Amino acid sequence: MSISSMQALLADFAARRGWEPFHTPKNLAMALTGEAGELAAEFQWLDTEESAQVMNDPDKAHAVRMEMADVLSYLLRLADVLGVDLEAALKEKVAINEGRFPTEVSMTRDVDR
Amino acid sequence: MSISSMQALLADFAARRGWEPFHTPKNLAMALTGEAGELAAEFQWLDTEESAQVMNDPDKAHAVRMEMADVLSYLLRLADVLGVDLEAALKEKVAINEGRFPTEVSMTRDVDR
Amino acid sequence: MSISSMQALLADFAARRGWEPFHTPKNLAMALTGEAGELAAEFQWLDTEESAQVMNDPDKAHAVRMEMADVLSYLLRLADVLGVDLEAALKEKVAINEGRFPTEVSMTRDVDR
Amino acid sequence: MSISSMQALLADFAARRGWEPFHTPKNLAMALTGEAGELAAEFQWLDTEESAQVMNDPDKAHAVRMEMADVLSYLLRLADVLGVDLEAALKEKVAINEGRFPTEVSMTRDVDR
Repeated sequence: MSISSMQALLADFAARRGWEPFHTPKNLAMALTGEAGELAAEFQWLDTEESAQVMNDPDKAHAVRMEMADVLSYLLRLADVLGVDLEAALKEKVAINEGRFPTEVSMTRDVDR
Repeated sequence: MSISSMQALLADFAARRGWEPFHTPKNLAMALTGEAGELAAEFQWLDTEESAQVMNDPDKAHAVRMEMADVLSYLLRLADVLGVDLEAALKEKVAINEGRFPTEVSMTRDVDR
Repeated sequence: MSISSMQALLADFAARRGWEPFHTPKNLAMALTGEAGELAAEFQWLDTEESAQVMNDPDKAHAVRMEMADVLSYLLRLADVLGVDLEAALKEKVAINEGRFPTEVSMTRDVDR
Repeated sequence: MSISSMQALLADFAARRGWEPFHTPKNLAMALTGEAGELAAEFQWLDTEESAQVMNDPDKAHAVRMEMADVLSYLLRLADVLGVDLEAALKEKVAINEGRFPTEVSMTRDVDR
């Protein structure tokens, strides 16, 4: 399923419920932070080892998957509404980061990883 | 470019810089909230109309696209590290939401849209 | 009730439940993003006018107040654990912002307001 | 410095710059998520031990203090604009949590701590 197919699915879902007027870029960006916060909440009290084992608990795994789906949904809707090509944006950002973090000098800690 | 291709690109980027030890689920979920917050910051002082016009300003458009790429990158990395199939998760969530928000009764406001 | 009194109340609450080992700076910062996201969620589908009227609905008002209390709680706990004087930090930040945003030239839009 | 004094300082700062029209509840809640995300970013790649030592590095300590001040500023502004008494809200939330998490049964993990 391509990104554009997922976007079409979500656009149709919103349209059939009359939600389009609420799906402004500002509102969608705000909703995205809420869902990112809910996803983070699944990990907030776990230590590193526990966070790596989170998918071994079926209930927890389901919660994590559904929160990730929520984040993805709003990101896809926002891209659709703004006309942003997410694949192209990702490739451009990776190219920029290739310049910012040359492999020979990035084996130490940086802010962005 | 499929989701798995984008994930392979990002996994390779991280591996070549020795960043894998930092890419724990907890850390990636936390990084995702930071990027979602930066994306939100692009819209925080804009009114509805301005937020809809944000891509008409080339500098602002570039900033928005790059913040969206950052959010996508961490979401893809997190899914990769956790073994989550994002497409399947999205479809499952949409199916759940079909039940939660029947089209005939969802033309009014709800928390989740 | 002073900031330090509120911090003492929260520290005692955590201590009596054996939660101190979980209240690391990293975990508290992560929990704060989750609560900020929940607070934002109260406003995400509201337009400007509706957001200004949110306290007129008793249920909504209660939800907003409780989310704000959650954000404040984690911020106070984080400050306590890190030994940060929030009042001093606020004054220092305001002084910095006085320099960044001189009153005579700040009557137009800036990123930070 | 009381909460209301800090709010008066921030209200004056905003008023002298003509920022009041931008300080709607929705915008302030959104700005708060951005600042919470920036605060989280200070901790995202640190392990538990490193996060506990973060204040030993003067540059990092300053960054953390200033991000905490930003979070506090927007929370105080939001409370001011909404007419929320943060101290009363905090006490009410603690009382609610006393009921939700009785001390005799809360020595194990829960979602909210």
